[in-house]
Amino acid sequence: MNNWLIDGVAGDRIAVTDRGFTYGDGLFETIAVREGQLRFLDYHLDRLLNGAEQLNISAPERNLFVAEAGELAKNSDYGTLKIILTRGTGQRGYSPPDQATSSRLLGLLPGVAPARKKYIDGIVVRHCSTSIGRSPATAGLKTLGRLEQVLARAEWKGETITEGLMSTADGYVICGTMSNLFLVRHGALVTPNLATCGINGVMRRVILERAERIGLQWRVEDVLRESLTDADELFVTNSLIGLWPVCRIADRAYPVGAVTRSLMAELTDMGISECAGL
Amino acid sequence: MNNWLIDGVAGDRIAVTDRGFTYGDGLFETIAVREGQLRFLDYHLDRLLNGAEQLNISAPERNLFVAEAGELAKNSDYGTLKIILTRGTGQRGYSPPDQATSSRLLGLLPGVAPARKKYIDGIVVRHCSTSIGRSPATAGLKTLGRLEQVLARAEWKGETITEGLMSTADGYVICGTMSNLFLVRHGALVTPNLATCGINGVMRRVILERAERIGLQWRVEDVLRESLTDADELFVTNSLIGLWPVCRIADRAYPVGAVTRSLMAELTDMGISECAGL
Repeated sequence: MNNWLIDGVAGDRIAVTDRGFTYGDGLFETIAVREGQLRFLDYHLDRLLNGAEQLNISAPERNLFVAEAGELAKNSDYGTLKIILTRGTGQRGYSPPDQATSSRLLGLLPGVAPARKKYIDGIVVRHCSTSIGRSPATAGLKTLGRLEQVLARAEWKGETITEGLMSTADGYVICGTMSNLFLVRHGALVTPNLATCGINGVMRRVILERAERIGLQWRVEDVLRESLTDADELFVTNSLIGLWPVCRIADRAYPVGAVTRSLMAELTDMGISECAGL
Repeated sequence: MNNWLIDGVAGDRIAVTDRGFTYGDGLFETIAVREGQLRFLDYHLDRLLNGAEQLNISAPERNLFVAEAGELAKNSDYGTLKIILTRGTGQRGYSPPDQATSSRLLGLLPGVAPARKKYIDGIVVRHCSTSIGRSPATAGLKTLGRLEQVLARAEWKGETITEGLMSTADGYVICGTMSNLFLVRHGALVTPNLATCGINGVMRRVILERAERIGLQWRVEDVLRESLTDADELFVTNSLIGLWPVCRIADRAYPVGAVTRSLMAELTDMGISECAGL
């Protein structure tokens, strides 16, 4: 049973004139709930509220999100808290209303823990043919317009392949359909540049901050899809899963290597228990 | 007062789990209603249903749209009929549900006739700094994800400027925020290539078909933003307005020229009375 609060009131429907629906004019977050706690809630709210500022959407106070999210999550052992923030209702036309009142939705959704095998052996990944468009105006943001990811994810069925990588039309790999990508090259961590597209993932931020703290060399760069074959290790991250090693793309196998393992240990230290004991 | 039919039932709210809301996983149309008639309804339904097929959204029969749209429009002298078609509700996650039932929304919205001056003297246009992303997977479609257009339209206020042009990051002009763009060069009609982004407008199709019929030379090409200064005439089109000549971009003035005027006469012939008598 889903459980939603819409502008503070229990409900499960939104106005058809809400600009989140009509134009994708809004943002969202999905937050791991573990034993009643919201994992990295501060980081999620950072991204949401910075994004709202960038889009000039007037957001409620951070504390209101904290209070409502905490209330929804407190009795959940394992779930996903979703937050949606839109520019609110408006008449037809792209021009944002002068006096828009944003809509705020929080919902607690069921979650299922991923198979342990994905953390131990890694996951099989494919390259998607649906390309990701460069859209500097919204790059990094988790906007409501995710049709490219939907189409990319629809390219395969079945359980063998877990994630698909998305690249720009000119051949730079950016991310997975639902994850950020990391490469290890000569002991250093590399992750694609998100200046023109892709989502600035919360777990990506966690990983990069941790790498900095433990003295692991890291850099953000433009990564040609072809160059993935030269990587020593590969892994993907997101807020709900933590980190999954990539063990294969097409006929190229990757080891679950030392850098990946050390970062999984770091995440375990930070309370991401899915990554523990490997 | 807005007037909506949602899957055939009067209402004004949609489930928060509708993928049109959560992921922009859907399409829409806005159709001019004039004296109870739906202008170019067939062309709008062509685009909607072809788009649904391309996105693998299972759409209801065309006749159902025709019937519901006609019922909503029949008593309206002047308005806009909006149709929204989404992939329907689904659980969290980008993967489209195997057995999704699409959501169909039709609403009659109020309309206000644009000032006559815009047809006679033309409109002032600007270049937007918000760029339009190349996204071949959805190019041409009127998807629900229109945040780039929203941000571009938010770049200016006031009545002096009527429309903003959007270009790719590499400097090719594609469209207006709410319109398609046409240039006249040496007597021939040119309109930007929409193979990688932009919306394949119904009025654009009408214009190109008419140009073909009357023997006006036309072509689709990649148009560098800088090359607009070399155009002899410029105009924009959309379903609701018909055609507006462009009289100025920054310090470059354009005449309302012979080709533009002849096409306005053709549109008048086809019942787009806004373009009449100029």
